[in-house]
Amino acid sequence: MLDWNEPLHTTNKPAANPVPVPPPQENISTSTAPVNPDDKRVINGQTDINQLAPFKYPWAWQFFLNANKNHWTPLDINMTQDITDYQHKLTLEEKHVYENVLSYLTTSDILAMRNIGLAVMEKMSAPELQIYQARQVYEEALHTWTYQHCIETMGLNQSEIYNRYRVVPQIHQKITIANRRLNSVMRSDIDLRDQDELHNFVISYMFFAAIFEGCWFYNGFSPIFALQRRGLMKGTAEQLQYIMRDEVMHAAFGIRVVKQILLEEALVLDKKAIRDMWDEAHEAEKTYANYILKDPILGYSAAMHMGQFQYIANRRANQMGLKAEPFPGAESTLPWLDEQANMRKEKNFFETRVTEYQTGGGLKWD
Amino acid sequence: MLDWNEPLHTTNKPAANPVPVPPPQENISTSTAPVNPDDKRVINGQTDINQLAPFKYPWAWQFFLNANKNHWTPLDINMTQDITDYQHKLTLEEKHVYENVLSYLTTSDILAMRNIGLAVMEKMSAPELQIYQARQVYEEALHTWTYQHCIETMGLNQSEIYNRYRVVPQIHQKITIANRRLNSVMRSDIDLRDQDELHNFVISYMFFAAIFEGCWFYNGFSPIFALQRRGLMKGTAEQLQYIMRDEVMHAAFGIRVVKQILLEEALVLDKKAIRDMWDEAHEAEKTYANYILKDPILGYSAAMHMGQFQYIANRRANQMGLKAEPFPGAESTLPWLDEQANMRKEKNFFETRVTEYQTGGGLKWD
Repeated sequence: MLDWNEPLHTTNKPAANPVPVPPPQENISTSTAPVNPDDKRVINGQTDINQLAPFKYPWAWQFFLNANKNHWTPLDINMTQDITDYQHKLTLEEKHVYENVLSYLTTSDILAMRNIGLAVMEKMSAPELQIYQARQVYEEALHTWTYQHCIETMGLNQSEIYNRYRVVPQIHQKITIANRRLNSVMRSDIDLRDQDELHNFVISYMFFAAIFEGCWFYNGFSPIFALQRRGLMKGTAEQLQYIMRDEVMHAAFGIRVVKQILLEEALVLDKKAIRDMWDEAHEAEKTYANYILKDPILGYSAAMHMGQFQYIANRRANQMGLKAEPFPGAESTLPWLDEQANMRKEKNFFETRVTEYQTGGGLKWD
Repeated sequence: MLDWNEPLHTTNKPAANPVPVPPPQENISTSTAPVNPDDKRVINGQTDINQLAPFKYPWAWQFFLNANKNHWTPLDINMTQDITDYQHKLTLEEKHVYENVLSYLTTSDILAMRNIGLAVMEKMSAPELQIYQARQVYEEALHTWTYQHCIETMGLNQSEIYNRYRVVPQIHQKITIANRRLNSVMRSDIDLRDQDELHNFVISYMFFAAIFEGCWFYNGFSPIFALQRRGLMKGTAEQLQYIMRDEVMHAAFGIRVVKQILLEEALVLDKKAIRDMWDEAHEAEKTYANYILKDPILGYSAAMHMGQFQYIANRRANQMGLKAEPFPGAESTLPWLDEQANMRKEKNFFETRVTEYQTGGGLKWD
């Protein structure tokens, strides 16, 4: 059972003692013994990657099964009213928010796809982890389709929107930070038995899970939800609610994997590296918020955006088991956000065809 | 519109003249001009990978949209009768076929996932190609789940089934061939501007698309379909019909990409390398067929299996535009296979919930 509010809660506790790194085995493929699940590792494992079962990480398999329950396509959501809203109801300031949020999100989701698909997945040495990440890679592609669908439906200039992150410094800054992390772990020949490389990989993975997906994305949808709460752009907002559910799972899974690596590899993270990560993310988010909300819109301001960022950042730090909250005392400035994310208030939501697919009984809604 | 019988037919003809390789551009990320689609390339491209539109390869985007229409999960298919069939109706010879086919398929699909996700996708330099491949990676994971579901539902020993490819030489041989190709293209720092590396990459990609997915998989389901035609293991067979539709698209997409690379890079493939590829695949398939069907079952034999392999291999060669058919004169020994693959005969098929998702109007059924 996955609870969207507490995505990290699992019944499978990580092992109490770190597992020593096994020596590299020669001729692994000539062994004909079945895989012993105790020999599996998140990274640096030597067991046969082609054998799914028996599982060592049943929680990873459960993530995969749950992810399949959140299936939809952007074509399933009615966007008709959004066109009218965009053309006739949004103020110039609201259009500015809408376009720049879409522009930021679409570039970010391609980056998220490349991070998991091209940098992370190959370094995992247990197939049950790779299989959830295969789903994750697809979900990022589905999100890219969703933004494309919104951009096309509203009649925006696609080239211009996709290119905007290179033109607008306040968007470019966030993408550059993510690209720097991504490039540092992209090579397939990185030796993760080297402690420095391992540390850099874990920090990068943590950044993508806890900040890029867990804070920037999570908080990134809220300007559109603010419009939705006023009855505007409800189709787009419903699309983003689906995406947000995926992203919350991605963040939860990534954080779970990072914790498992720390245990198995007996790795202690450098406190300054983590502090710098929060500070850099906070500074970039502030620049971004001040740009998209240089003129506040009704019910939403840059100050509210940043307050919520700090509040969510503390939540992610707690989920990771970090002792220090990065922004002590931060309180939620968008008390409606978690509720919005859970889609409880959508009266007619369960009448749409999409959610009829959610039948496995494994999704907990309240 | 995608026709499952002629998956390669597209309205987008490749460019008539090969495009010269552009010189590597410095500081690409500092340019602020939108992407010109004419500058995109399948590989060795220098355009911004983060900008989806404008498309140069609209057929790739269409593959992605079509793939999303074939959504199902293994839990949607009733397996109850299969349990009874397996326990009380299958002969020992039929059980031998069933178990070994599952064992072969499950290892193969993990390999297929790793090939696209870890070796191929990162070398593509246009996002519309990567996005279909992201879906493809997920579909392979979904297939792995499907086999796992069948294995678990029938109460087979999971460890033993997953490990069988290492114990049975006749299965191991096919996996070894695929692994050799995969390992030769796995590195992320392969320079595809080097003609030898490029040639090896294209041959490997061609092997996975046209043989591994296009012949071995396509033909690999048919022993189970032979049982289905006699009213046995119909749940498993329906699962495999879904998988087969995916695999036909994978093969078609891969072949389309290979043809595009040949045009853009003005690459001429070595005829002997292709001949060797067919011969090796044929020999391994024969060994495999003689093992799983050492005792023929009612309505299916190793000779029929191999006749169909040759017939399908010729089809793939034609789709790739190769002048020489590898097995001249081969005729279909399973005339019911294409029809089975298209699921036309499943009387109640459209009454199941799964196919209600197939509503985009883009799938052509007859």
